[in-house]
Amino acid sequence: MIETITSIQNAKVKKWQHLTTKKGHQKFHQYLVEGWHIVGDAITAGQPVVQIAATAAQLEQHQADFPNNVEQFEINDEIAKKLSDTVTPQGIFAVIDILPANHVTPDTVSGAWLLLDRIQDPGNIGTMVRTADAAGFKGVVFGKGTASRYTPKVIRSMQGSQFHVQLTEGDLTEWVNTLKDRQMPVYGSALDEQAKDYQTVTNQADFGLIMGNEGQGMSADLMAATTINLYIPIKGDAESLNVAVAAGVLMFQLNHDL
Amino acid sequence: MIETITSIQNAKVKKWQHLTTKKGHQKFHQYLVEGWHIVGDAITAGQPVVQIAATAAQLEQHQADFPNNVEQFEINDEIAKKLSDTVTPQGIFAVIDILPANHVTPDTVSGAWLLLDRIQDPGNIGTMVRTADAAGFKGVVFGKGTASRYTPKVIRSMQGSQFHVQLTEGDLTEWVNTLKDRQMPVYGSALDEQAKDYQTVTNQADFGLIMGNEGQGMSADLMAATTINLYIPIKGDAESLNVAVAAGVLMFQLNHDL
Repeated sequence: MIETITSIQNAKVKKWQHLTTKKGHQKFHQYLVEGWHIVGDAITAGQPVVQIAATAAQLEQHQADFPNNVEQFEINDEIAKKLSDTVTPQGIFAVIDILPANHVTPDTVSGAWLLLDRIQDPGNIGTMVRTADAAGFKGVVFGKGTASRYTPKVIRSMQGSQFHVQLTEGDLTEWVNTLKDRQMPVYGSALDEQAKDYQTVTNQADFGLIMGNEGQGMSADLMAATTINLYIPIKGDAESLNVAVAAGVLMFQLNHDL
Repeated sequence: MIETITSIQNAKVKKWQHLTTKKGHQKFHQYLVEGWHIVGDAITAGQPVVQIAATAAQLEQHQADFPNNVEQFEINDEIAKKLSDTVTPQGIFAVIDILPANHVTPDTVSGAWLLLDRIQDPGNIGTMVRTADAAGFKGVVFGKGTASRYTPKVIRSMQGSQFHVQLTEGDLTEWVNTLKDRQMPVYGSALDEQAKDYQTVTNQADFGLIMGNEGQGMSADLMAATTINLYIPIKGDAESLNVAVAAGVLMFQLNHDL
């Protein structure tokens, strides 16, 4: 049974819109994703997809791939446009539950972990998750003050990598201290030339890497708590690197084959 | 003498707005930049700044740093908002001449050069120019189909690096052939695992590196014309890297100290 919704004033449409905001995520413990690329990835990854809202054409096209128990809604182009974060919406959306079970603690993890300290820009956050996936990292920890991982722009730039690596919120001070107690080095990132050149670090299988806020860098407290802080030598006259580019350079260097 | 402009219907305001578009750049051979960070950088770099439009407060604050012969205009907040590409405009703008002398040809260049093949996203383009600067590249060549370097979003993400490295438009096929004739290797970038692992390349002082379109990668013709094509091994399940991140990883690897 597919329910048809034709009015943008419909309560479900309003709730779905709300599921693109931080407040909505906190209230309903659900978030909205858009486009078949990401909806399909979520289904393939066994994510708790509970509702699908799509145009008639999209419902028909992807019907065979939907999970059995998912609620389906047919929407029109006007509603698709209302829900969409893009200029030309594809016309397919899914509601996914946010499970508390997604929470990861630092006392049992292994492999490489990326820690985000107050990163603001959604594109930077999503790109770093995507790069962490590509560089073979196990997961990404969202510290306090880092923007939510359930907003449309972050989701779009993650390109499905949120289903390949573990994502969790966490207290970065606790993460740093616990990893260090477990003999896993934690690298900070600095612009400071007193920090260590990133190319001189010996590769490790298990470690943490912290990237800091776009304008201010890492917090002073975290900087003091790391095993060591790394910097990327700047050759030209640029004052700094974009944080997602710096994260990419560091992740591929630190996690290349041992 | 400072002319005061109070109406957003004023012809100068309309022209300045036009200078944020590709059509405007072609018609007037000028472009508009915004914010003291970039206006100040342009002046310091000796760029041909011909007009400054700013609020009374901004004019007063930066007066000492203006070039002698620059035309000055006082504008109000409403005009600043109209001209601005940001949510909270700083209230200072400059008109800069686009000089034909900026054109660079491949038959005399040395050092590392980044070649952009049909890159679409303004943020990616700007970030690559900023990273090229930081990685010690000499310049960036904008191939046909790559978005204009004079639009507000590209300018904002370049963060002043356009005044530190040489930027030019160029025919990439001509660049590749001329560099190769001059014994400078030209590296393509590919997702193809049949390409060469980027970490196995020996550093060179003089070379070209091509980055391709976000969705389609480099054109097949260019791919066939390069000295060799490189790929970054993907370890996780990500399908690809963001092009600006990939460019960062490649540029810092290829241009690290010999």
